[in-house]
Amino acid sequence: SDDSEEMLETFLDAAARGDLSQVSTLLSNTPSLINQTGHSGWTALMLAARNGHHHVAEKLLLFGCDKFSVNSSSQTAYDIATFWGHRHIAGLLGRAADGCGRILPGADLHPHENYFSRETLDRQSGRRTDKVWLEAKQSDSETVYLLFSNLSPMVRTQQQDGSEAEVKDLLQKPSTVTIFLGIEKTKKSLSEEKNCSFPRSPNRDLLKLSEEEAGVVAQARSVLAWHSRYSFCPTCGGATKMEEGGYKRSCLNSECRSLQGVHNTCYPRVDPVVIMLVIHPDGNQCLLGRKKVFPVRMFSCLAGFVEPGETLEEAVRRETEEESGVTVGPVQYVSCQPWPMPSNLMIGCLAVAVSTDIKVDEKEIEEARWFPRQQVIDSLFRGDRSVFVIPPRQTIAHQLVRHWICMNSNL
Amino acid sequence: SDDSEEMLETFLDAAARGDLSQVSTLLSNTPSLINQTGHSGWTALMLAARNGHHHVAEKLLLFGCDKFSVNSSSQTAYDIATFWGHRHIAGLLGRAADGCGRILPGADLHPHENYFSRETLDRQSGRRTDKVWLEAKQSDSETVYLLFSNLSPMVRTQQQDGSEAEVKDLLQKPSTVTIFLGIEKTKKSLSEEKNCSFPRSPNRDLLKLSEEEAGVVAQARSVLAWHSRYSFCPTCGGATKMEEGGYKRSCLNSECRSLQGVHNTCYPRVDPVVIMLVIHPDGNQCLLGRKKVFPVRMFSCLAGFVEPGETLEEAVRRETEEESGVTVGPVQYVSCQPWPMPSNLMIGCLAVAVSTDIKVDEKEIEEARWFPRQQVIDSLFRGDRSVFVIPPRQTIAHQLVRHWICMNSNL
Ligand SMILES: [Zn+2]
Ligand SMILES: [Zn+2]
Repeated sequence: SDDSEEMLETFLDAAARGDLSQVSTLLSNTPSLINQTGHSGWTALMLAARNGHHHVAEKLLLFGCDKFSVNSSSQTAYDIATFWGHRHIAGLLGRAADGCGRILPGADLHPHENYFSRETLDRQSGRRTDKVWLEAKQSDSETVYLLFSNLSPMVRTQQQDGSEAEVKDLLQKPSTVTIFLGIEKTKKSLSEEKNCSFPRSPNRDLLKLSEEEAGVVAQARSVLAWHSRYSFCPTCGGATKMEEGGYKRSCLNSECRSLQGVHNTCYPRVDPVVIMLVIHPDGNQCLLGRKKVFPVRMFSCLAGFVEPGETLEEAVRRETEEESGVTVGPVQYVSCQPWPMPSNLMIGCLAVAVSTDIKVDEKEIEEARWFPRQQVIDSLFRGDRSVFVIPPRQTIAHQLVRHWICMNSNL
Repeated sequence: SDDSEEMLETFLDAAARGDLSQVSTLLSNTPSLINQTGHSGWTALMLAARNGHHHVAEKLLLFGCDKFSVNSSSQTAYDIATFWGHRHIAGLLGRAADGCGRILPGADLHPHENYFSRETLDRQSGRRTDKVWLEAKQSDSETVYLLFSNLSPMVRTQQQDGSEAEVKDLLQKPSTVTIFLGIEKTKKSLSEEKNCSFPRSPNRDLLKLSEEEAGVVAQARSVLAWHSRYSFCPTCGGATKMEEGGYKRSCLNSECRSLQGVHNTCYPRVDPVVIMLVIHPDGNQCLLGRKKVFPVRMFSCLAGFVEPGETLEEAVRRETEEESGVTVGPVQYVSCQPWPMPSNLMIGCLAVAVSTDIKVDEKEIEEARWFPRQQVIDSLFRGDRSVFVIPPRQTIAHQLVRHWICMNSNL
C-alpha cells in the first residue's frame, strides 16, 4: 500500500541521514522494516554504512538486521563500508565485532520468519480487563472485525456493501464469540474496508494467506477453537462465561475450586510440539518419515507433543526413538511456529543421531529413511519430485530442512 | 548404589579398552554416565584420549560429552591426548574439528541439566494402550508405586512394614488415580523398598528432592494435577473416564464432539512459559524484577505464558515490554525446565534489550532494575546478599543468570 511504501521511504531516509532516534522508533513500531530494500536493493544498513553512521548501523544490528544481504550490485553492507573507507563500520560488520554477536555469541541474528509467526498486532493484554475501553472499541467505527465461521476465516467472493450492519447483527447473536486480538502496530489496516476485514486471498485455505493475515488468523483461530472446545468447566462440569476480551472463561458455579486462586482451566490452551530434523552421524544425511495420510512421495520431519514433566530435548529424543528407533544425542533449537490446528506451538530443532538403524512405529509412521544431502537439495532447490517431496514452505518442517542445507553450505 | 558403581566401572573400562559398541550401548541406556568420573577424576573421554581410541572419543562427543572437564591433575582430555601424542584425538577435541560441532555449529554440546529435567524413566508410551500388559504390571511385585496425596509426594517419617498391603488398599479405592509413568532406564530402583517408593528426603518440599526423584515427581505431579482439574469434559460438561495408563480422559457422553477425531481436551495439558534474562545493550547489565510475594531482596528473571498464535521470541518481547517497558531485539534459546506447579514448561532465553528505560507494570511487578555484572557475581558466587538475592539453583532463573555470567567469562 502507499502507506507502507511511505514508511519504508522514511525509514531508509532516516538511516541514510543517521537519524538514530527515528530509526529506533520506526523499528520498534514496525520490526518488519529492518531488511526491506529501496532503490537498487539498498537496505537501511547499507545506507548507514555508505554514509558512515556507526550508531545507526549498530542499532540495526541489535534489532537483528541481516548483514549478509546484497544490493543489486551484489555488495553487502560490509563491502560498502570498506569501499567508502568507514573502517569502524566495516569492523562492526565483520563477524567477530558485531554488536549482539558480542553479547550473545552463537545467537542467530537474522532468523527466518516462519509462516503464522508475524505479529502485526500489539496484543495489549492489559486492556483485556478494561471493560469500558473494550465496549467503547466494539462500537468504534475504526475497529476492524475479522469474521470466522466454524474456525475458518470468512471469505468475500464479491464486493458487498453493508458490512457495518452485518457486524452489528452478528455481535447481537448470543452464539457469537468476540475476541479482542489487539491493536495494529502500524496504521495500515488489513484490508481496504474500514469495518470488516476478509482475507485478500479468495479462498479459505489457511496456508494461502499473506504473512500479515496468517499471523492474525493463527491467533484468532487458536482462541476460537479453545472457546468451541472448552465452554464447560473441566473442574466441575458447570457452564462458564467469557471474560477479558475472550482470553478467559470463568466457572459460573460459585462453589467451584477453579475460582479459588489462578487455574489454567480458565485460560486458552497452547500445546507445545517438538518437530525435529535428525542428522546422521556422518553429517550428510537427514532422517525424514511419512505418514499414511501424506500426499504421494511426501516425507517430513518427525514430530510429537511434549509430555508433562519433559524437556524439549527429552521430547525430541523420546519421539525420535518411538517413531523411528533412532537414538538422538545433542539437540539444538532453531525456531518455532504457531500452528492453529487448533493451537499448537511447533518447536523446531536440529538433532544429531548417535545410532542409524531405523525401525518405524507402524502406528505413527509408514516409512522413515535417511536422505542424502544431494537428494534433499535436488528436491528443495531443483524441483526434482521424482525421489521425494518435502512439505510446502509455509511449514516449519520445510524451513528446518532448508536451514540444515543452508547452514552447511556456509561452511 | 553398588549397581550403578559397577555400571560406571564397566563404562569407563570399555572406554579405556576402546570398546565402541559397549560404550554406545551403555550410553543409550544410561545417558547420565557420560560425564561421570572414576579414579582421580578421569572421565571416559580422558581414558579414550589416553589410549588413542579415536572412535570412542568421537562417539562420546556425539553424545554431548563435556570435553572441558578436568581430572584431579587439572588436565582436560585434550591435554591428555596431546601429552600421549594422539594428535588425531587432540584435533577432535579442539574446538573447530569437534564431531557434533561440525554437524551443529553453535550447539551447546554440554548443556546444564536443570532441576526437574532428569528422565530416569523410559515412558514407553506405546504400552499405555496395552491394557493386558498394564494390568499384569499393576500386580507385579517388581512394580514400584510412588504415592501422592493432594499433589504432594508422600513422605515416610519412620520405617514401616506392609507397604505392599497399603498399595493394594489404595488401588481399590475409587478415588485413587493410577498413572503408568514408565520403566526405569537403569535397574536401580528409586528407593530401597521394593514395592513402594517415597522420596529419600524427609520432607515434602518439591525443591529438596534428589535429581532422580525430581524428574519423576515433575512428571507424576503434572499428570495428577490434570486429573484433579480436568475430570469433566470441557466440550459438553459430562463425566469422563481415565484411559491409557492415566494419559487420556474420554467423555462418557457418546454424542460428544470430543469423541469425533483427536482432541486436546482428552490429553494432559502442558503450558509453555517463556522466562528470560534480558541483557543491557552495553552487555554488562541484566534486567531482573521482583514480585510483591518474593522474599526480601529477591529479584528474578521476567517470565510469562506463551499465548495462542505466538512464537517464543514474540512472547519474550511482549512479556518484557509489558512487565518492564523495555524493548527486546534478538532472543536466544538456552534451555528449559519442566515446572510441575501444576504443569508448566519453562523455556529459558537470553535476550538483548534495544531500549533501557524501565517502566514496570505494577500489577505484575513491584520493581525492575538493571544489575551490573559485578553485583550479580557478588550475589551468585560470593554469597553477598546485601544488594539482592537470586532464586535458588533449582530454578531455571538461577541457571540463566549463571549461564550469562559464565558465558562471558569464557570470552
Ligand atoms: Zn467449575
Ligand atoms: Zn463431552
